[in-house]
Amino acid sequence: MLDFDNQHAIGTAMHAMARALWPLPRSISGDGLRDTLRAVAGLNPQLELIEVPSGTPVLDWIVPEEWRVRSAWIEAPDGRRFCDFAINNLHLVGYSTGFDGVLSRAELEPHLHSLPEQPEAIPYVTSYYQRRWGFCLSQQARDRLPDGDYRVHIDAAHFAGSITLGEVLIAGESSDEVLLSTYCCHPSMANNELSGPVLLAHLGAWIAALPRRRLSYRLVFVPEMIGSIAYLARCLPELQSRVIAGFNLSCVGDERAWGYLPSRSGDSLADRVARHVLGHTAPDFVRWRWTDRGSDESNWCAPGVDLPVATVTRSKYGSYPEYHTSLDDLERVVTARGLGQSFNAYRRLIEALECNLTPHATVLGEPQLGRRGLYPSLSLKGSTADVRPLLDLLSYADGSRSLLEIAELLGRPIWELAPLSRILAEHALLRFTAIDR
Amino acid sequence: MLDFDNQHAIGTAMHAMARALWPLPRSISGDGLRDTLRAVAGLNPQLELIEVPSGTPVLDWIVPEEWRVRSAWIEAPDGRRFCDFAINNLHLVGYSTGFDGVLSRAELEPHLHSLPEQPEAIPYVTSYYQRRWGFCLSQQARDRLPDGDYRVHIDAAHFAGSITLGEVLIAGESSDEVLLSTYCCHPSMANNELSGPVLLAHLGAWIAALPRRRLSYRLVFVPEMIGSIAYLARCLPELQSRVIAGFNLSCVGDERAWGYLPSRSGDSLADRVARHVLGHTAPDFVRWRWTDRGSDESNWCAPGVDLPVATVTRSKYGSYPEYHTSLDDLERVVTARGLGQSFNAYRRLIEALECNLTPHATVLGEPQLGRRGLYPSLSLKGSTADVRPLLDLLSYADGSRSLLEIAELLGRPIWELAPLSRILAEHALLRFTAIDR
Amino acid sequence: MLDFDNQHAIGTAMHAMARALWPLPRSISGDGLRDTLRAVAGLNPQLELIEVPSGTPVLDWIVPEEWRVRSAWIEAPDGRRFCDFAINNLHLVGYSTGFDGVLSRAELEPHLHSLPEQPEAIPYVTSYYQRRWGFCLSQQARDRLPDGDYRVHIDAAHFAGSITLGEVLIAGESSDEVLLSTYCCHPSMANNELSGPVLLAHLGAWIAALPRRRLSYRLVFVPEMIGSIAYLARCLPELQSRVIAGFNLSCVGDERAWGYLPSRSGDSLADRVARHVLGHTAPDFVRWRWTDRGSDESNWCAPGVDLPVATVTRSKYGSYPEYHTSLDDLERVVTARGLGQSFNAYRRLIEALECNLTPHATVLGEPQLGRRGLYPSLSLKGSTADVRPLLDLLSYADGSRSLLEIAELLGRPIWELAPLSRILAEHALLRFTAIDR
Repeated sequence: MLDFDNQHAIGTAMHAMARALWPLPRSISGDGLRDTLRAVAGLNPQLELIEVPSGTPVLDWIVPEEWRVRSAWIEAPDGRRFCDFAINNLHLVGYSTGFDGVLSRAELEPHLHSLPEQPEAIPYVTSYYQRRWGFCLSQQARDRLPDGDYRVHIDAAHFAGSITLGEVLIAGESSDEVLLSTYCCHPSMANNELSGPVLLAHLGAWIAALPRRRLSYRLVFVPEMIGSIAYLARCLPELQSRVIAGFNLSCVGDERAWGYLPSRSGDSLADRVARHVLGHTAPDFVRWRWTDRGSDESNWCAPGVDLPVATVTRSKYGSYPEYHTSLDDLERVVTARGLGQSFNAYRRLIEALECNLTPHATVLGEPQLGRRGLYPSLSLKGSTADVRPLLDLLSYADGSRSLLEIAELLGRPIWELAPLSRILAEHALLRFTAIDR
Repeated sequence: MLDFDNQHAIGTAMHAMARALWPLPRSISGDGLRDTLRAVAGLNPQLELIEVPSGTPVLDWIVPEEWRVRSAWIEAPDGRRFCDFAINNLHLVGYSTGFDGVLSRAELEPHLHSLPEQPEAIPYVTSYYQRRWGFCLSQQARDRLPDGDYRVHIDAAHFAGSITLGEVLIAGESSDEVLLSTYCCHPSMANNELSGPVLLAHLGAWIAALPRRRLSYRLVFVPEMIGSIAYLARCLPELQSRVIAGFNLSCVGDERAWGYLPSRSGDSLADRVARHVLGHTAPDFVRWRWTDRGSDESNWCAPGVDLPVATVTRSKYGSYPEYHTSLDDLERVVTARGLGQSFNAYRRLIEALECNLTPHATVLGEPQLGRRGLYPSLSLKGSTADVRPLLDLLSYADGSRSLLEIAELLGRPIWELAPLSRILAEHALLRFTAIDR
Repeated sequence: MLDFDNQHAIGTAMHAMARALWPLPRSISGDGLRDTLRAVAGLNPQLELIEVPSGTPVLDWIVPEEWRVRSAWIEAPDGRRFCDFAINNLHLVGYSTGFDGVLSRAELEPHLHSLPEQPEAIPYVTSYYQRRWGFCLSQQARDRLPDGDYRVHIDAAHFAGSITLGEVLIAGESSDEVLLSTYCCHPSMANNELSGPVLLAHLGAWIAALPRRRLSYRLVFVPEMIGSIAYLARCLPELQSRVIAGFNLSCVGDERAWGYLPSRSGDSLADRVARHVLGHTAPDFVRWRWTDRGSDESNWCAPGVDLPVATVTRSKYGSYPEYHTSLDDLERVVTARGLGQSFNAYRRLIEALECNLTPHATVLGEPQLGRRGLYPSLSLKGSTADVRPLLDLLSYADGSRSLLEIAELLGRPIWELAPLSRILAEHALLRFTAIDR
């Protein structure tokens, strides 16, 4: 049983899950994706798999053929194999066509990808929507390739199959929903892939175990871009009528930074909660702009879609040197500690949404706290300092502001005001309404 | 006859009145309060006294019993009396019960209050809503008390009586009102008590003597907290329909600082006038926040009450060392000069409200000021500098902005623009409407 | 044929025109004004001359008598003539009455105007609305005048004539108009006079030659103040219903500064375009305030008139030492280069207005740019940098923002986004609406 209050334990569990998912040959379709989703289902038994067939038109896109790789490698003139997909699935360009043949080194060259400025890194390269084949390798390895004949072997096929979407719905008292999305389509990389699904899987387990949920939750595990497009094609009206706040989980596993990327509008409930939580827990967080986006928020927030989805991230995609290379690993980049911290940050985001009701003072004028035992009976210099937060909360509880807005006005975290609001409610001095869009 | 244009004379008169009121045994009820209000009536003959009986429910509160003290003192083992209420009415804890008996020093201790960090000061302590008795004395005096038997004498009674509210209504051309409130419930202290009622009494006399009043005025002299609650219980709907701006007068007698504390909304007419007047006369004024409040503005501005009441203060309650002690006196803290300055500042606030009409230009395009003798007939380099304020005022007189808003746009004090607006009105280039909420 | 794309050529042409117009005896009425307008008609054959008779009431003003000068000079005791109107028309105070007589030097003195602080400058002085006569000369010349008898000769007349307004209407696809105004009433001065009409005449020629105009254009050449008042009296309702943005061209010929003076509201379309263009081309431009105004914007933006007219200027009237003196010339102050730069800046303003449509994305979610050849087919690290502007533009194209607003959000000049918006429209990914007020 997971101990969600123990950051170390939960971080360790997440890291172990990431390690188990590491070798699966993920892509935007195929069994690597399906197996990853099945692992998520281990923690979230409610997970539904949705298959969207190849050729289905989804918004402006068409679902591509499914891709299956059995094996892929190159044999050097000396007979040594390298770029073996079985050893590191980054070696094969994503969605490569099948191929078998012998090429000279010069003929091979245009099919090879490496990064001269990061000579040890295997880059991550894909070609989803145009047929070609290619291999990725470190610059160091490439530089050592001799002249001669190379046998190239790619046992890969494109066929009419489907892409797979994973959806977890967890009902609460209200049909108002929180959307939490992540993507499961990258091969063996840690921060820009596995941190997202392992965090979301564990958050799902925690949410499902909550004794009480005011809000409902929708967890979405999809291949990036085509997956969110397909999901929108499937249920956009439902999302628009229900989702009050959402977050796209991406790059949430390292310890090196905190970041926030706004929704397109920049002032949705998700944005305000994100800035509030980070402002009180990681005040130096990086404030990215909408134009720095690069994941499914592009679709969730697109014109006409306009879901209130913000991003709370660690070292954001594109902003750290290991990004989209084999160096984005579970040793130097993603850590159990980083994952545990991210779990707690997302827990705070959700707890903030759960308690973000609109309080209304029930009496006119300042109430007589003294006869309720909430005020010191003897008036001395400074004797009321302790009750100031109570009085300040009450003074703003005019029904026009949510608890989050009051917390911002008072410069205090919402998790300090929520218990005070409960005390006042117990004394019938506050009542709540839920107008938190 | 008071010379309201002579700051020195008016300050001296106010200081003399404060000195006369000093020994009255004020509390939230009783004859000290009533006698203070009667002294106010000397300058404001229209003052109405309103008695609210003990036991009356007022909003969330119940009016407490009245408190009367005939005498109170302690006799030391050597027969010397100290803590004598007749000498300084701060010595007795406010609302102490009657008591007569002999106690050891150890038994006496829990009933004594002093301030170790201000060893010369007698603190101000009350216990309005829980029955107990106690004495206040300087730490120096307390430290000198020998062991032995002490006779404690308190001839005090609680009985079904009333609390007393004072109200002065001064009608103007409009039923729109300015609310000016202060409190009269503290014993012998100067800035945090007497400065308020003596300033408001003199302002009332000045307002009543004005040859013309556009606005009506409501002056309220009450015991703090319970008094404003009782007053709201009596006439909240009337206040809500009439009051366009208000100020709570508190700590307005020293020369050491200027301060402004906003209404709850922070942008009422009262707030804008307060910031405008202080901005032009005391630009370094302290900008307190709503969460620094501590007087009747808590009730005037409470959720559902929402009167537009701001505070213009000098050294604010809680922010100066003598606060709530015997050191808050008429020698070192409150001065005739400080009171005179405060009179003039409040006069400016009221004059600003009186002239804050909305001007409308009556002609399209820039008018021909020249044929009205308002523009130089010879056009030389720089010859129009003197008429710029006239033209600027006219250019903003589009009926959408009050004179105060135009003054803010032009960065000039409203008392410079008001005479210009009158010149333009005399030439029929401006007309006024009153939309100044 | 003018080459509008050649800044040097266009600046040189403008400077030549200014030199030709230099000696014409301009005033707020008369043949100097008419001849200047006729020269404008050389480039703008559609120019209509509107004569408004003396005595006509126009808004708050009355059109003054026309003024005609045949000759004016003073003969010194030694018989030498000076202050000869034929040599420099600044010598005679504007609207001087006729006079012929002999005066002592002392009698002459009150009729002379010079600038002690600029001893070489002849000042510019007028007395339109009060009858008097006077001469302007340099302080140096004045200081050399000997005692003795002076013969003063002014052959000038005031008579019932008219003032003359010039109007050029250039129709576009929409009846929405851009108002471009300038004034033609100052004698021989360069920046504060001739730069305006020569720039506007050349802009008119360029606008008329455009292959396509979305908007209509109204060019107004008038005597300052009385001319704009008379023009408003003539067609205010038409202006109010049609003009979506306007600029008053004044002091647009030197190279020393760029400046912007807002409309009265400060946030009209004209203001936003002006700040956008200057922000990207001359980011250090001087930001004048509305209270620094001094030309026809006072009337275009007056209360009840409220046309959206801003000012883009170089060294603004009143802010440079040569202003309103004979030193404001075509050698040291106004240059061909400065005029050419101003032409290009105004061209950018107009091009910005022409392309400022409101784009709407036509598909939900991010479109598949790849199948339209707008996206790299191979996904490498950093491979999408080039398409970011396209995607960013699309992401803001939600129908709530004009292209100008999107350009401001993205921090890019509108002239970089306009071609991108055309590419997207060609691929049917954007459509446009015109809601640009």
